[in-house]
Amino acid sequence: MLTFNLDSTPVSDGPRAGTVHTLHGTIQTPIFMPVGTLGTVKSLSPEDLEENGARIILGNTYHLYLRPGGDIIDLFSGLHDFMQWPHPILTDSGGFQVFSLAKLSKISETGYNFQSHIDGSRHMLTPEASIEMQIRLNSDIMMCLDQCIAYPSDHDQAKSALELTTRWAARCKTTWMNRTDGQNSLFGIVQGGMYKDLRDLSVQQLIDLDFPGYAVGGLSVGEPKPLMMEMAAHTLPQLPADKPRYVMGVGTPEDLVELVTLGADMFDCVMPTRNARNGQLFTRFGTINISNAEHRTAIEPIEEGCTCYTCRKYSRAYLRHLYTCREILAYRLNSIHNVHYYLSLVNQMRLSIVKGEFASFRRDFYRTRKKQ
Amino acid sequence: MLTFNLDSTPVSDGPRAGTVHTLHGTIQTPIFMPVGTLGTVKSLSPEDLEENGARIILGNTYHLYLRPGGDIIDLFSGLHDFMQWPHPILTDSGGFQVFSLAKLSKISETGYNFQSHIDGSRHMLTPEASIEMQIRLNSDIMMCLDQCIAYPSDHDQAKSALELTTRWAARCKTTWMNRTDGQNSLFGIVQGGMYKDLRDLSVQQLIDLDFPGYAVGGLSVGEPKPLMMEMAAHTLPQLPADKPRYVMGVGTPEDLVELVTLGADMFDCVMPTRNARNGQLFTRFGTINISNAEHRTAIEPIEEGCTCYTCRKYSRAYLRHLYTCREILAYRLNSIHNVHYYLSLVNQMRLSIVKGEFASFRRDFYRTRKKQ
Repeated sequence: MLTFNLDSTPVSDGPRAGTVHTLHGTIQTPIFMPVGTLGTVKSLSPEDLEENGARIILGNTYHLYLRPGGDIIDLFSGLHDFMQWPHPILTDSGGFQVFSLAKLSKISETGYNFQSHIDGSRHMLTPEASIEMQIRLNSDIMMCLDQCIAYPSDHDQAKSALELTTRWAARCKTTWMNRTDGQNSLFGIVQGGMYKDLRDLSVQQLIDLDFPGYAVGGLSVGEPKPLMMEMAAHTLPQLPADKPRYVMGVGTPEDLVELVTLGADMFDCVMPTRNARNGQLFTRFGTINISNAEHRTAIEPIEEGCTCYTCRKYSRAYLRHLYTCREILAYRLNSIHNVHYYLSLVNQMRLSIVKGEFASFRRDFYRTRKKQ
Repeated sequence: MLTFNLDSTPVSDGPRAGTVHTLHGTIQTPIFMPVGTLGTVKSLSPEDLEENGARIILGNTYHLYLRPGGDIIDLFSGLHDFMQWPHPILTDSGGFQVFSLAKLSKISETGYNFQSHIDGSRHMLTPEASIEMQIRLNSDIMMCLDQCIAYPSDHDQAKSALELTTRWAARCKTTWMNRTDGQNSLFGIVQGGMYKDLRDLSVQQLIDLDFPGYAVGGLSVGEPKPLMMEMAAHTLPQLPADKPRYVMGVGTPEDLVELVTLGADMFDCVMPTRNARNGQLFTRFGTINISNAEHRTAIEPIEEGCTCYTCRKYSRAYLRHLYTCREILAYRLNSIHNVHYYLSLVNQMRLSIVKGEFASFRRDFYRTRKKQ
């Protein structure tokens, strides 16, 4: 059974540090979860993740359902053994990928009827099927199937989607309770688009269903940043203070700092790994693009003082050379640095919260970035 | 100064074990050198190479001259620090890449006038320029610039090419002696196509020039395997027994066993790393293609008993999944296994030679492969 303890002085709507206990170990929050779409965080080994502070990763149910498929996962009794990751795994429901990737997706009360983006084969993703697949993955934290909507959506669309999301959440919870002993946890997902009254409604309906944790979905879908922050600031304080709060699919380093300020505990985003593969590297002074000519003769590391493997060993000049030659090693070295950056950031936030010094951390974070 | 000691009972034309002492450390022969074309053995880190037994790698002068270029290499006083590889490096001369990759290459007594395969820029590769670039790379073992010829070539073409190769070898040696203190070593390359009389001539001319080691070039260029072995068997015993013998660009595991039988000490080939990236994996029973459907549900490693990282941790099913999804991690895990296979093979040969049991090793090698 998932439990959550606060390690900082409880506050209703400010930054907090906590510890989440799951089937495969504990996670100290705030935490960032690297995205392991297809049973691998792209370019990284499990050791690379561990060494850089990752303690929980995200797996994509839609992708793993299509490839390798549940029958292969069953041979390994779940995703952990298949990919040799011994620590916790959170899986999404597959809803967002059906919405964004699949072809000819049709939604009904039953679920999503969709065509695989790989071979066009037809599949049905119901709340029950999503939970069943997440159980097969032996996910530590499963997510309810939700209806994702585009930005912008009108109030009627957003209301209808959140209400379906609530009915699906109830079905997910029933499947979870009937099919597991509760060791694998299940989070509800708040929807409601960019409408505060709908966010309120969604929060209330999900709290009534009583989940071990809650996520804020439907953010970072194309809306302006101030609107995203407004919705997060409106929603996060309404979520139960004694349960983990997960903001899905977000975001930049600044987003993480702002959302932790608002009381969020968990994050996932492809940004550190995807940007690494595009040559964009995060530093405390801001981002750099390793392909820029200025790095051609730079013998210094990506970031002075960074303790990641890449910065301990390699120069910007070498990394630029690898990247411009499209050498495979470039993707791994860049990803190691970016994942280390994200995990260090959340760890520093946690330490500053525990010490009661988060405000000063936040001030320094922005000051250092402005220096560049 | 490079020195070479035999660790097995000296024989004029049979398998031998030795130790090569170079500027950056010692190498125990027979040895295989993974190919690090652009300052990286594709997909692998220096630690990956070390952990799997690599103690010397090959760098391609042509590629490194074009990218990152000598000015960047100079900032790091050579290739070792640039790529963070502390052990010996052998560099080729660039001649083979000009022959096989460059556009509109024109050869004259002076050298190769060629166009870069990357941007079409014109360059001149002379024996002196090749050695200068290899000195900048701080190569432990430099190679003389040679004229490579296609297979088949007629006797006149082959004779003319080997004679130019000898004249260039003399110029390479002069540059090496004038420009270094002899700590970086230089090998001569035997040419002569598929003509025994020309191989004899080339060997004699190079021995007259007196190099610290000798390579057999111009093999594995499209000729039938028996012809390659015939030329190697004819040439290798003529090379000085007290100096390292390097067969360039070869080959399959069987090739290595046969060439060690004939008294060769050093090898390089892209096969373990290139084949890894194509899903072909070496085992003592033969090769497997990881994309084959039979591996879909295989929970066993690539090779039972293999001690490489990949085999210690991952199933064929996982590796097939990664490979069919074209995940970056697949290339690294496959390459680790194949490099480990090649380095284990040469190490086993060395141990059996030292013990005087090479004939029995060779018999077992073929018997095990036939079992499959």
